[in-house]
Amino acid sequence: MAVYTEVNDEELETFIADYGVGDLLSYKGIAEGVENTNYIVHTRSGPLILTLYEKRVARGDLPFFLNLMKHLSARGVPCPLPVTNSHGEMLGELAGRAAALVTFLEGFWTRRPKAEHCVQVGRALAELHLAGLDFPMHRTNALGPAGWRPLFQRFQDRADEIAPALAETIARELDEVAGAWPQALPSGVIHADLFPDNVFFIGETLSGLIDFYFACNDFLAYDLAICLNAWCFEKNYELNTTKSRALIRGYQSVRPLEPAELDALPVLARGAALRFLLTRAHDWLNTPPGAIVKPHDPLDYLRRLRFHRTITSVAGYTGGNEA
Amino acid sequence: MAVYTEVNDEELETFIADYGVGDLLSYKGIAEGVENTNYIVHTRSGPLILTLYEKRVARGDLPFFLNLMKHLSARGVPCPLPVTNSHGEMLGELAGRAAALVTFLEGFWTRRPKAEHCVQVGRALAELHLAGLDFPMHRTNALGPAGWRPLFQRFQDRADEIAPALAETIARELDEVAGAWPQALPSGVIHADLFPDNVFFIGETLSGLIDFYFACNDFLAYDLAICLNAWCFEKNYELNTTKSRALIRGYQSVRPLEPAELDALPVLARGAALRFLLTRAHDWLNTPPGAIVKPHDPLDYLRRLRFHRTITSVAGYTGGNEA
Repeated sequence: MAVYTEVNDEELETFIADYGVGDLLSYKGIAEGVENTNYIVHTRSGPLILTLYEKRVARGDLPFFLNLMKHLSARGVPCPLPVTNSHGEMLGELAGRAAALVTFLEGFWTRRPKAEHCVQVGRALAELHLAGLDFPMHRTNALGPAGWRPLFQRFQDRADEIAPALAETIARELDEVAGAWPQALPSGVIHADLFPDNVFFIGETLSGLIDFYFACNDFLAYDLAICLNAWCFEKNYELNTTKSRALIRGYQSVRPLEPAELDALPVLARGAALRFLLTRAHDWLNTPPGAIVKPHDPLDYLRRLRFHRTITSVAGYTGGNEA
Repeated sequence: MAVYTEVNDEELETFIADYGVGDLLSYKGIAEGVENTNYIVHTRSGPLILTLYEKRVARGDLPFFLNLMKHLSARGVPCPLPVTNSHGEMLGELAGRAAALVTFLEGFWTRRPKAEHCVQVGRALAELHLAGLDFPMHRTNALGPAGWRPLFQRFQDRADEIAPALAETIARELDEVAGAWPQALPSGVIHADLFPDNVFFIGETLSGLIDFYFACNDFLAYDLAICLNAWCFEKNYELNTTKSRALIRGYQSVRPLEPAELDALPVLARGAALRFLLTRAHDWLNTPPGAIVKPHDPLDYLRRLRFHRTITSVAGYTGGNEA
């Protein structure tokens, strides 16, 4: 939540002039985005979002993300559309950073998702998956199972500073989840980070999906498992099965899950909890005190992980009813 | 430059509904404003700025600021216009803070002001002064000469941590400036903080004046003296007389200065430099390391103060020419 890079008026006017969006009218740094710096920019042709990519996002991945948004947007997914400059490029350079201009999406994220929101998120996720099937680029999931153990090794020695025996718990989960991980499931482009703050609503109608900077190729059902973790738990860490049923039902109304995907959902959800536990634990131990961006509490995901261990079939998420 | 107070979607929708501006479409915290939290809010009727007043702004002063903006806006000064709610009030409450919605002004501040900008700032400042003459409310300048000594006493013991003999320099300046301060000059409502980041331009045309949260009643020429300090010095701390002449000329094209005001300009400019030296020095010594908002360097104003000590008449600012 920060503006890492300040942009001055003259360089921004020069940058904007190359995009055919009319004169610059105003720009303000916005306190959103943990990885990148974002400005809301008004031009004669309306509002836009300017993103400056900070070092945590690999520059080589940016064409994948930008082309994906263009591809999905053309297929009706309500995501930001990168604007192309006079050289036919979506990626420019500003204030020493790679930079892109994308369309502004109205809407705002809901702090207290209800089942109705979950239905729509499920539906939008499935639509995103279908729209991505013919996207020609490929990006390996750096935070998929193969990336978990190396990430763990970077903070293994200090893990118990977060919670007693956390290192032992994670080591056991890495083994068990890896052993039970599906060999093959329907795959394609996934969002991989569709948390509530990346989904906009106006009233109760979904209006936008943002932040495609973790998007990659992986099992489609794994994306749904991430959403189960992100959308369906209450503050007391209990699964709200009304919400998880709604999420899965919304998804299946657009793209019915195959039996193998339904069977795999418990281990995928456990893996997703482990993935967020790992990145949060790493960030927790590596964020200097007084940093602008406060790290998320990793224990939220330790508790989810424990819950998923108790689930043996998809009925654990649908309350026993067919979703 | 920070969002101090987070607003959730439900409380904002409730708040906005009372203002007759149409449904809430989006809102984003903006990284502007040192004292308060600001959001850019889109509704069906267009963009607005939502300000949540943090503790550094005295709640009792808010009616003065909001009524002043309404008064000036009605007289053509391009400042934010507070929106009135269904109870006829401009001041509401949100997320435990006093809060106001004001119109959004297009434009952006210029990082490298040129003489042409200074002409327009001078003109706009004089127009603000004339428009404020019939404003019926009154607010004493808490950061006028009477407030300087008590402020100094709060950090006097530690002043030399900033620069050698700074305490001695300030003590001498307080005496000399107080002794030479004018007894009476044309007075009225002044902005009191019209720095470049509070003046918006589109291209080279002034489009807005913002941040009225230091506005008060004081000598009108003192406001011009603040602008001399804020707009007309180069990075090497030398006065750019082309800019200072342009600023004064722009001001006089709308409101000619009286002889007593012209005579007083050197001591007013010296007093203005002292005022910003004092607040910056205080903040410099009292900002915890790692704070979100970095304090300004007080020495910028020590150097300006030294410059103003060498000026004996207004010709020092106009390059000897009649402005």
